[in-house]
Amino acid sequence: MLFFTQCFGAVLDLIHLRFQHYKAKRVFSAAGQLVCVVNPTHSLKYAPTRCAAAQTSVEQSVLPPCHHHEAVHDPQLVPCTCPLFSCPWEGHLEVVVSHLRQTHRINILQGAEIVFLATDMHLPAPTDWIIMHSCLGHQFLLVLRKQEKYEGHPQFFATMMLIGTPTQADNFTYRLELNRNQRRLKWEATPRSVLECVDSVISDGDCLVLNTSLAQLFSDNGSLAIGIAITTSKVHNAEDEM
Amino acid sequence: MLFFTQCFGAVLDLIHLRFQHYKAKRVFSAAGQLVCVVNPTHSLKYAPTRCAAAQTSVEQSVLPPCHHHEAVHDPQLVPCTCPLFSCPWEGHLEVVVSHLRQTHRINILQGAEIVFLATDMHLPAPTDWIIMHSCLGHQFLLVLRKQEKYEGHPQFFATMMLIGTPTQADNFTYRLELNRNQRRLKWEATPRSVLECVDSVISDGDCLVLNTSLAQLFSDNGSLAIGIAITTSKVHNAEDEM
Repeated sequence: MLFFTQCFGAVLDLIHLRFQHYKAKRVFSAAGQLVCVVNPTHSLKYAPTRCAAAQTSVEQSVLPPCHHHEAVHDPQLVPCTCPLFSCPWEGHLEVVVSHLRQTHRINILQGAEIVFLATDMHLPAPTDWIIMHSCLGHQFLLVLRKQEKYEGHPQFFATMMLIGTPTQADNFTYRLELNRNQRRLKWEATPRSVLECVDSVISDGDCLVLNTSLAQLFSDNGSLAIGIAITTSKVHNAEDEM
Repeated sequence: MLFFTQCFGAVLDLIHLRFQHYKAKRVFSAAGQLVCVVNPTHSLKYAPTRCAAAQTSVEQSVLPPCHHHEAVHDPQLVPCTCPLFSCPWEGHLEVVVSHLRQTHRINILQGAEIVFLATDMHLPAPTDWIIMHSCLGHQFLLVLRKQEKYEGHPQFFATMMLIGTPTQADNFTYRLELNRNQRRLKWEATPRSVLECVDSVISDGDCLVLNTSLAQLFSDNGSLAIGIAITTSKVHNAEDEM
């Protein structure tokens, strides 16, 4: 009986996933674009303190603020870049991706253009939707965060970060695109490096920012589809492009 | 002496205008795009009450809320659509443009693509930057507004409205584009009709919304350049376009 219940649950999950996938395909062109359903995670870490620490010193941020850590660190080691948890892990940049996959169960997707379908947008802040995106020989971390900067007025912040150094990040441009109800919003920027703190990018507002009413206009039945594209940036001259 | 002072002031104004124009050209491609310097105006009208009136009945909104107006109106008459002032004027839709030009001194620009250069973005809210745009045989009203929806946190709202009926407005798509510092933000939507209240479009947040930090990132020395393009919308199917 338990086996039957579990199987039935799995089938229901598959039907739900299929339905979400269909919804995203309706919004975005079906041709060759991978749609990834991303479920929300309630942010558990003590964000402001951790971020303040990360900005002042990478070494101090590898442990949650309640710990005191006095060992001498290898300067090549970086802390865990998962925006969800205060995680004591540290390691070389090259193994950050496998740590995020294995320990934090963050999915990774391949492809130059993907659709990120964030479900349950109505959940209260703080909530994060996170995925990794493998493209052009690098891995990127896409973070969508619902956060109340002004009490009682949640906003959505979306940014893309390279799992690499700031110098490597300068070689790319990412684009986030919303498209629904005869409205379209596009944000294009150079990704930041995960060595910079995602919390500070969001608190600076240097990302795609949506208030609740815009998020609702672009949502379909509580899910928000974000088209993502990454390109290598040429020698960029904004003056000649418009 | 008075004549000399006035002439000198006019020359200074021209030099300042030329400088602003040069700044906008640096940001946007110079080829064929008209750059219009738009100075701010502190909003003088009692917006919420006027807007509530306009939403319930066009006839009731033609006079400021302190007046009582009991005459029978021609249903083809529309109130003044200037977002800045509570103006008792009313007239046919065809003469709204000349009223806005003559009485409210709102400039009108020709061209399919123009650059709107809003100066003095630092001025306190509420402040409006307004221009009319003549294109594809119609006139549009572009409104950029700095407003504090949440006390102490001013935001910028930009929208375009057709000086025409909602049915006519459905035939167009407008695009607002910001481009600076290797960041680009584009908003595309169907314009609303000026018969709908600009205040309600902004309070619904159904427009381009910028928080102060994003506005600063896109500004150059206190001026924000917004590229504007208007196209006729075909039978629009968002599903096939991305």
